[in-house]
This record gives sequence, C-alpha cells and structure tokens, in this order.
Amino acid sequence: MSLEVVSTNLAHGGVQGVYKHASAATQTDMTFSVFVPKHEPGEVLPVVWYLSGLTCTQANVTEKGEFRAACAELGLIFVAPDTSPRGVEVADDPDGAYDFGLGAGFYVDATQEPFACNYRMWSYVTEELPGLLAQNFPVDRTRQSIMGHSMGGHGALTIGLNYPDRFRAVSAFAPIVAPAQVPWGQKALSGYLGEDQAAWRRHDAVALIEDGARVPDLLVDQGDADTFLAEQLRSHLLEQACADAEIPLTLRMQPGYDHSYYFISSFMADHLRWHAERLKA
Amino acid sequence: MSLEVVSTNLAHGGVQGVYKHASAATQTDMTFSVFVPKHEPGEVLPVVWYLSGLTCTQANVTEKGEFRAACAELGLIFVAPDTSPRGVEVADDPDGAYDFGLGAGFYVDATQEPFACNYRMWSYVTEELPGLLAQNFPVDRTRQSIMGHSMGGHGALTIGLNYPDRFRAVSAFAPIVAPAQVPWGQKALSGYLGEDQAAWRRHDAVALIEDGARVPDLLVDQGDADTFLAEQLRSHLLEQACADAEIPLTLRMQPGYDHSYYFISSFMADHLRWHAERLKA
Repeated sequence: MSLEVVSTNLAHGGVQGVYKHASAATQTDMTFSVFVPKHEPGEVLPVVWYLSGLTCTQANVTEKGEFRAACAELGLIFVAPDTSPRGVEVADDPDGAYDFGLGAGFYVDATQEPFACNYRMWSYVTEELPGLLAQNFPVDRTRQSIMGHSMGGHGALTIGLNYPDRFRAVSAFAPIVAPAQVPWGQKALSGYLGEDQAAWRRHDAVALIEDGARVPDLLVDQGDADTFLAEQLRSHLLEQACADAEIPLTLRMQPGYDHSYYFISSFMADHLRWHAERLKA
Repeated sequence: MSLEVVSTNLAHGGVQGVYKHASAATQTDMTFSVFVPKHEPGEVLPVVWYLSGLTCTQANVTEKGEFRAACAELGLIFVAPDTSPRGVEVADDPDGAYDFGLGAGFYVDATQEPFACNYRMWSYVTEELPGLLAQNFPVDRTRQSIMGHSMGGHGALTIGLNYPDRFRAVSAFAPIVAPAQVPWGQKALSGYLGEDQAAWRRHDAVALIEDGARVPDLLVDQGDADTFLAEQLRSHLLEQACADAEIPLTLRMQPGYDHSYYFISSFMADHLRWHAERLKA
C-alpha cells in the first residue's frame, strides 16, 4: 500500500509527519499524522491513537495538541487520523451541518445510503490504518492505547471497549459517552446505521458497558465550563455505568475548562503519562 | 484606553486571552494575545514579549507555540502582538507580496508614504502596548524580557538592544540578524524608512552592536535545515558581531530543524527557562 508523504518536520527530536493514501475502506484518499520520537535503529515503540472531534481533521491536534514534548520524553508514537472520508463525491449532511457527514464520521461503518460506500471510519481506524502503520512505522503492535476528544472520545471509548485485548489504555477528553441518549449521537447513529437502535449499542460506550464490555480502567477529563456538557456529553452517564460495572473510572471535572484545544492541551501530558504507565507495564 | 475581549480560555491553569483595541500608534484596530498564569490576588508577574515572523498574526504562536505549560510552571506572562497594522484602508505591498506590508511590519516606524500613517510597529510594541498591558494585566514592569521568530527575532534583538534597561533577557528563534545585508530586510527598510541607510542602523542588530549597543548575553536557536538561513538569516553575522563586541552569544545550530513552529515549539520551553533565570535573578 503506497503512502504519500505530505510533510515531515523535525520536532522535539522526532519527526512529525503528515501522510496521505488511497483508502480501501473509505474509497477515498485519507490523510493522517504520525509523530515518531527519536529512537534507536530497529527499535519499535508503543503507539497512542488519538481520535479527533467534530469538524476536525488530523491537523487540529497535530498543531494545537501539545503532545510532542511528552511523547518524545516517554517514547510514544502518536497517530491522528482524519474524522471522515472527504472529497467532492462523498455524501455530506443534506443541510451542510457540522455534526453529520464531512468531519463527522462518528467512527462507525455506515449501513445507510448514501453513506455506506464511504463512511467506514470503524474499519478504517480499527483495521486498515493499523495495518498501514505497522508496514511503515516502527510500531510495537502489542503495545497500543487509544484516546480522543468529544466525538473522538466516543470513538476511543467504543473502540477500546470493543478491542480490550488490543488497547492497554483508554482515555478521553470531554467524550460523548452515550450517543444513543444525546442529539449529536442520535442524529449520527440513525443517519449512518438506521433506526434500529440494537445496531447502535456497539457504538455507545454506556450501552457497551451495560452489555458486558470491560476495560481495566478509564481516565476522562471533562471541563465544567464546557457548553456541550449538559446536552451532548453527559459524563455522569459514564460514571453511573462504570460504577454499576465496577470499572475504575477516573473522571476529573476540571473547573473552568471549556471544550477547546486549550483544555485538551492542558491535560494532554497527564494522559500520555497515564498511557505510558500502562503501555510499559 | 478600552480593551475588547475577543476570547478567553482557561489553559494550563491560567487564562489565554485575545484582545482588540483601537491603536493610537497605528490608527487601526490591533489584536494581541496574553497568557496570564495562575497567581495570587494582587501578585504581579514578569512578562515575556514574543514577536512573530512574516505572514503571522498573534494567533500562530498562541496556537502552535507550546509556551503555556512552561509559562504556567515558571509564572511568566506571555504577550504576542500582531505583526502589522491591518484593515482595508491600510497600504500593502503593491504586488501583494508576503514580505512587505500586511503581516510584515518589521517593527519599525515607517517614514515613507503611503506607510508612515499606519506602519508604526516600533511605537506600538515599545510604547503603546506596554502601557495598555500595565493598565490591564498584572505585569511587573521591572521584570520584562523579549524573544521572537524570524522577522520577530529581528524585532526582539533590535528592541532589546535599544532598550537594555527594560529587558532583562533577549533571545530569538531563527532571527534576521542583519536586515541591511539581506533581501527581506533591504526591501522592508528601504520601503518603510527610505534609501538613507543611516536610518536603518537602529533597526539592524548587527549594526546596532557595531555602533556600541550592548546586552548582557543572547540566546539564539537556528535550524540548520532552515531554507532561509543562507540568504535571509545569516546567523554567522551576529556571531561575528557578538564576538567582536564581547557579547556572550549562545548560538545553537539545531541539526535538521526548519523554520516552522515545529522548530520553535521544540525549544520554546528552553528559552522560557533561560528568560525566567534572568527575570527572577
């Protein structure tokens, strides 16, 4: 599978790259970024997946995430995929809304037309991109973890809960924890997966936990000044589900923080240290 | 003087703000950013000035500079002005080039028409904005330092050399060190100040040092893969001038680094620690 190098820049002693490839999963070109810290020849490194939120591409976290200093210090590869297929022939929200279609793939494989052809972000993030990464970067596939923000926090939680043997750590910044119970999620899951809510449960962190999915522990940071908290994020639903399932959840309500990358970057190094402890255990 | 709050976001325990005001110096609205770390009521903090390079606004370093974690740890206020006056009535490069006019004020007070009315970045950065800052933020005016990148490195060096009593530390990332000897600088200084090169010397770090200006020491990081190094930056000219004048210059040629914010952000924390040592001495 051929990989086009969009850009590489030396940063914090490692290489921050942006790459493009023709995706079999989405039938479009896909762009992603990878930071590889300085390492010995032949050495393989643990990898942290970062899934972004609504409206974002790989660029937002790459430019504003403040992850490179900690990844360099801890020896972690950091991968950031895009949030949806893109291109003029890719179906979008009929009204051009920001919360569905382009920039809003919700990390599912769509079954509904006209989205089923391209909107296969679940397969892309869980199958295709991991393979591509292993072929092209010095990753240790036995040491992977996943984190994300907002819609990407939803992605990290649901992928982490579906693949507990693959990911040694799962964390999130301001995640959508129960998409079936909030407007953003209801719009996306019905649009991509249809009205049968049974098909939604594999893509809803709270439902997955109710249905028996387990991870060793979870770390979630949530700003209490986040304007999406009450209607869309509702972290207390995850708190309740984890309590019922006896999953140790560290939910930190961060006073005064909002939903922006100013919030994410403030706690990024904390999350990476938490991941590194579990990746190197 | 009234200040409009464009945005404030909590970050790394402090407040990252963006502000706008009607500038008397430039006769336009001007936008700048300030990060104020968490502090005790009534406490005043040392302030680091950061001057940006060609094409930038205050936003580039604010989003990509990775300065907040170190400023929070070290208790430093970080101020980032824009790089020129802006507005539909402000004169620009006749060809719309990136290296003159909008986004390219070069930190001088223009004497040539049609630039003399608005292009007064020297007065703005050295007089008006310091006053505004003192009125609105908890700054300790006796503890100030200055740094910058590229054209902003030129600004930091020339302002630092002109005001050695005001700034306790001066550093730069990939600065233009001798504008009178390089194409970017020759275009800007002739365009803003006219053809009489005597008027340029106050705005040329190497000429200032030749003419007797002194600072206690200087820190400069320069990527050796910076495509502007040989033609526009020419850091060896500063090295020679400092050697002749016995100014201790720490010039670090950083192997493999380019001219981007990936380079700046890699060494930002180093610079801030170097500033903090001098600001708190």
